[in-house]
Amino acid sequence: MKRPLILVTNDDGMFAPGIKNLVNVAKKLGDLVVVAPDSPQSAKGHGVTMSVPIRLNKVDVFGPDIEAYECTGTPVDCVKLAKHVLLKERQIDLCLSGINHGSNASINIIYSGTMSAAMEASIEGIPSIGFSLLDYSFEADFKGASHYAELITSHVIKHGIKDCNLLNVNFPKLPLDKIKGIRVCRQAEGRWIEDFTEGLDPRNRKYYWLTGQFTIDDRGEDTDIHALSEGYVSIVPSMHDLTKYAAINSNQLMEKLG
Amino acid sequence: MKRPLILVTNDDGMFAPGIKNLVNVAKKLGDLVVVAPDSPQSAKGHGVTMSVPIRLNKVDVFGPDIEAYECTGTPVDCVKLAKHVLLKERQIDLCLSGINHGSNASINIIYSGTMSAAMEASIEGIPSIGFSLLDYSFEADFKGASHYAELITSHVIKHGIKDCNLLNVNFPKLPLDKIKGIRVCRQAEGRWIEDFTEGLDPRNRKYYWLTGQFTIDDRGEDTDIHALSEGYVSIVPSMHDLTKYAAINSNQLMEKLG
Repeated sequence: MKRPLILVTNDDGMFAPGIKNLVNVAKKLGDLVVVAPDSPQSAKGHGVTMSVPIRLNKVDVFGPDIEAYECTGTPVDCVKLAKHVLLKERQIDLCLSGINHGSNASINIIYSGTMSAAMEASIEGIPSIGFSLLDYSFEADFKGASHYAELITSHVIKHGIKDCNLLNVNFPKLPLDKIKGIRVCRQAEGRWIEDFTEGLDPRNRKYYWLTGQFTIDDRGEDTDIHALSEGYVSIVPSMHDLTKYAAINSNQLMEKLG
Repeated sequence: MKRPLILVTNDDGMFAPGIKNLVNVAKKLGDLVVVAPDSPQSAKGHGVTMSVPIRLNKVDVFGPDIEAYECTGTPVDCVKLAKHVLLKERQIDLCLSGINHGSNASINIIYSGTMSAAMEASIEGIPSIGFSLLDYSFEADFKGASHYAELITSHVIKHGIKDCNLLNVNFPKLPLDKIKGIRVCRQAEGRWIEDFTEGLDPRNRKYYWLTGQFTIDDRGEDTDIHALSEGYVSIVPSMHDLTKYAAINSNQLMEKLG
């Protein structure tokens, strides 16, 4: 069987340990092209760069055998450039994004550059997986994450993703032998309670700096947050159709307006 | 009945005609606080500013009766600051975002700063409506958009949004008397076919500049794109739960991995 062509990207930038670990996993399973931002792009959401030009530079970060480019744009820009410029003549079989330093479970999928890159590829019809580890540290232990990223990726290469084109995978912050397994779940309902640090800058102007705590009211046992808290890897099959179908009929009264 | 407190925001910045038109509609229906970016933030997606501080400046843009602030951050930052700093002690009854210059129908909801601001408010439990007009021009005719924005907003103030907290409303580019009415629809499946303009900058470095054409393969007659093409205002009840529920069971094979 032909080795699949795998596009690897992330939002923490080309020099983050997470993408290095993901490249080490992915190169066992396919031929890689890496296109990643040249600087950290966390929490950039599904941003796209339109008002300024962007650049691509070929770099030797992962050794001479792996074609890698750093991009001056967002994670979504990386995917667009890969699909429509760099790999225009080739078929991308799979897109892997991450391994993100920090959780993208629950509603964090919405803010996440890692998941937006994966979603962008999925919109293009490319099966895509975003991987995130619940540890912000650049010294994080990626052994568990790498082990399960390999299992999940090989499964997807063999069997595809059923009824879906996008997986949001999160790894608990645990040593490999403490991870209990994998659970396929739904996205937990949660939100950030923001707490802005206020201060005065050197020119005596007031500033606000975002901090905040993530909070979960959702007590369901079928969520990603619950699976992670129990020591499992969480997989949420995800999509870009934001329609709330259940609410279409109940709001049809609005058609009578005017 | 107490007048509702309405938060108004957008992604085109404080000086765009779209937000002026929305303020003129909203001030008839409630008490307003406007918090909008100090520069255009189109296609910023659900970006959040974490690595630098942000600032708020009180401005007199809409007359002395309307409290307005420009913010150095993204549309989502505007909502976070409004909710957690400016209006911490008050209840925001409704959030209106827009009127965006350009369509946010179909998958454009994902890239849109306008819709991300509205979604952020909806995550906070605030009923929210994002409005967009299918006309990029700053000289666009907002009469039809304003008329229907008022009808929809008054309806939501009176009746709430049923089974949902977020509406994605798009207006066709038509004079008021040519708009046929309102349709509550689903998000059309579509995608951008990118076409990067390539060039050399003054320093002879290659650049890529995003252009592209939006394309629809979805021929459904129940979509926002179809409603707009027929001359209707489209309303898509929307949400931030991206779980593809139908795919949870079919991917449970992955739980057996390892």
